[in-house]
Amino acid sequence: MLNNLQLTTDGKLKHFLSIEGLSKAILTNILDTAESFTSVTDRSIKKVPILRGKTVANLFFEPSTRTRATFELAAQRLSADILTLDIKTSSATKGESLLDTLHNLEAMQVDMFVIRHQDSGSAHFFAQHVGPGVSVLNAGDGQHSHPTQGMLDMFTIRRHKQQFENLCVAIVGDIKHSRVARSQIHALNVLNTGQVRVIAPRTLLPEKTESLGVQVYHDLDEGLKDVDVIIMLRLQKERMTSALLPSEQEYFRQYGLTAERVKLAKPDAIVMHPGPANRGIEIESSVMDGKQSVILQQVTFGIAVRMAIMSIIASQATLAS
Amino acid sequence: MLNNLQLTTDGKLKHFLSIEGLSKAILTNILDTAESFTSVTDRSIKKVPILRGKTVANLFFEPSTRTRATFELAAQRLSADILTLDIKTSSATKGESLLDTLHNLEAMQVDMFVIRHQDSGSAHFFAQHVGPGVSVLNAGDGQHSHPTQGMLDMFTIRRHKQQFENLCVAIVGDIKHSRVARSQIHALNVLNTGQVRVIAPRTLLPEKTESLGVQVYHDLDEGLKDVDVIIMLRLQKERMTSALLPSEQEYFRQYGLTAERVKLAKPDAIVMHPGPANRGIEIESSVMDGKQSVILQQVTFGIAVRMAIMSIIASQATLAS
Amino acid sequence: MLNNLQLTTDGKLKHFLSIEGLSKAILTNILDTAESFTSVTDRSIKKVPILRGKTVANLFFEPSTRTRATFELAAQRLSADILTLDIKTSSATKGESLLDTLHNLEAMQVDMFVIRHQDSGSAHFFAQHVGPGVSVLNAGDGQHSHPTQGMLDMFTIRRHKQQFENLCVAIVGDIKHSRVARSQIHALNVLNTGQVRVIAPRTLLPEKTESLGVQVYHDLDEGLKDVDVIIMLRLQKERMTSALLPSEQEYFRQYGLTAERVKLAKPDAIVMHPGPANRGIEIESSVMDGKQSVILQQVTFGIAVRMAIMSIIASQATLAS
Repeated sequence: MLNNLQLTTDGKLKHFLSIEGLSKAILTNILDTAESFTSVTDRSIKKVPILRGKTVANLFFEPSTRTRATFELAAQRLSADILTLDIKTSSATKGESLLDTLHNLEAMQVDMFVIRHQDSGSAHFFAQHVGPGVSVLNAGDGQHSHPTQGMLDMFTIRRHKQQFENLCVAIVGDIKHSRVARSQIHALNVLNTGQVRVIAPRTLLPEKTESLGVQVYHDLDEGLKDVDVIIMLRLQKERMTSALLPSEQEYFRQYGLTAERVKLAKPDAIVMHPGPANRGIEIESSVMDGKQSVILQQVTFGIAVRMAIMSIIASQATLAS
Repeated sequence: MLNNLQLTTDGKLKHFLSIEGLSKAILTNILDTAESFTSVTDRSIKKVPILRGKTVANLFFEPSTRTRATFELAAQRLSADILTLDIKTSSATKGESLLDTLHNLEAMQVDMFVIRHQDSGSAHFFAQHVGPGVSVLNAGDGQHSHPTQGMLDMFTIRRHKQQFENLCVAIVGDIKHSRVARSQIHALNVLNTGQVRVIAPRTLLPEKTESLGVQVYHDLDEGLKDVDVIIMLRLQKERMTSALLPSEQEYFRQYGLTAERVKLAKPDAIVMHPGPANRGIEIESSVMDGKQSVILQQVTFGIAVRMAIMSIIASQATLAS
Repeated sequence: MLNNLQLTTDGKLKHFLSIEGLSKAILTNILDTAESFTSVTDRSIKKVPILRGKTVANLFFEPSTRTRATFELAAQRLSADILTLDIKTSSATKGESLLDTLHNLEAMQVDMFVIRHQDSGSAHFFAQHVGPGVSVLNAGDGQHSHPTQGMLDMFTIRRHKQQFENLCVAIVGDIKHSRVARSQIHALNVLNTGQVRVIAPRTLLPEKTESLGVQVYHDLDEGLKDVDVIIMLRLQKERMTSALLPSEQEYFRQYGLTAERVKLAKPDAIVMHPGPANRGIEIESSVMDGKQSVILQQVTFGIAVRMAIMSIIASQATLAS
């Protein structure tokens, strides 16, 4: 059902809600399109007229300066008109009222909604209710999905490793509460990644992790052995104060990525992090700034990947309208 | 005096502060101009260069996500440069300081001020003090006036009923505290509407209501009989907790618009609401989403009407400068 | 060191952090370039394509509606894409984290950072760490520097007095805590101003004031005698409640600029204030609105001066990248 909602009847991407249910061809098309946009953002005039005269509404029900910035820049560089709304988590965000908000904005002839919301499924809810000419882009919904982050991670891996089939990728940290991890795992599987490992304490793993098509490790040193890609996750402060975790120091001792531990991976392994990182908690500062780190490249590629996704879904919505 | 302030010496609209004092010719010109802009907002590239290189400053002394969005979109679609300022209700908003704020922004060569303010008369105050090349647009001032809402309502009525002369229009709810109602009544009168009814409990009617040129009803069923247009007003929550009203349930029982009651009006009557509506308090959900409701069309037409008003007053200000 | 950081190896302005260390030729070039932009902001279409496709990030760690507005307008009129971020004074603004914020935004291919920060030296810190193609513009850092304000003041003086060599300029008020005064004094000295006077109570003067190349007065009447330019400073409310000052009334009696006192200066003296002014505390209302006041002109010229500085540093950064 999810894939139907994202796709037109002839299988083109119209909304971008979740990587789950998308084909390898669709993901590869996003990556290839993003490749062409990296040249736009490199050049002196970083602007193409693809979305000129279109209106992109950024609806941030959950505040995020960094994600908002990347979507505003992507939309500006596509020449869109932009409406950014920080919507307080009030009664207005629930059920019927959320629908009224959606329909009102849609009546203003918004062409694309970029939605970040603390509740899982919000972007799907929007996509179910918008008219045929309008696209919905999920910029993170609850603990469910953060598919643009997942795609920019794939783009970064492909740039450095060219292919996925022979790779071993390790994702380290709070898998349980991470929408980023969920999107990464789906994308890696769709792209036929050789092996996907998750490394976490039992308390930070979801139930039935193995059903996600990954190998589970509880020991970091063991899990990092000979991997090509290390993806660290941000540890949410609120987890640290809960019963789920021992102290920060103990977490770092067991699951923090140190220069020493990076040596367990392949010599040309890359280190990734969706940001913002807690230096000294999940990752040592020297690793974050080290020569194997591609963390800032992820940010740069994130603009091109978002431009690619926006232009792809906008062109389908225009055809449908 | 009010009309003088809004008009140039040869009777052209230069500020848009209040519908009171404007001629039928001016209102009709706004409606006709808006008609041409509906085609702009319908097409794929929703942008015209009318305000290119002009600066529109949106000054929101009273927060309103929805109204701000409509004005930002209207200005963007006219290609204006936009400066949106949320100005806290502090000492800075009173008397001398308000004037200093105005003069400072004017010194930045702002071409148009869109002002929303909790105090009645604020937009007039601004218009009195700006230079000859600058326009002021009232986006709602206290309980006084919300003239762009009034005009988009007229546009919606004309779209559905073609003329005003033979119409019977009923406005239902809190007339006393509603700047929207005040603007609607003025506009309907200027456009020679056949009959204008207001339907409200005595506690929610202003003194000397009849002097506004309307017929007063206290009974909803009686008032709705054979009308062509039903305009519901939003009931402010703060009125409900005051001594002015019985309970929400009792209000809905007496003044809530139900599907049953809609049948009292003419069969082709339209149902309007300025939004955001309180479903189940002043209007039944099924009526709001029903086939006679034109509530979302009001939002769409609101962009075209605001584009029309902005372009009309900007062209006069340019001539004057 | 400061000047090295602002200049390219062949002595061109690449960042604009502080007037200290800049040559007369560089300041004069800014003033001449701003002169050409005043015609842009005067004409009907106030826009030039100089920064089209460039991204300007306004980082406001310290809120300022007015300064933010002038930078947004300057960047819009240069056709830049603009990202405005209000960054809360949290842990994120300190040390390592500030650097992470910088590097993340830089990875989004921002071309210019406009930074306002409550800590002295923040803009320098940014300039030290950005890549070769990125410019940094100081929009006010702590009590250190506010160089765009300094330059717009010089522009205003030159417009009215044509030259600096034969002028006597008095700066009145809280010199000690004013980044504006610091920037003004440096600029006046670089431009070989005949005489620069500071007039303040001892508690509001920095140590070793004379080393700044100014003459110190504690008596306002004496200090104003025969000056060509009177620059009043804003008195921060927090100083008034501290032990540094007597009452507001007493301050006004001793250091407030009255119409009577303006007569002590030359007949064609101009009165300036960086705004926002406290009417009746440091300046009498009638003086602020009087015929010798050029306070609103300062605001207007401020846009042209900021456009000039932005276009100058952007062109150097483009060459360097």
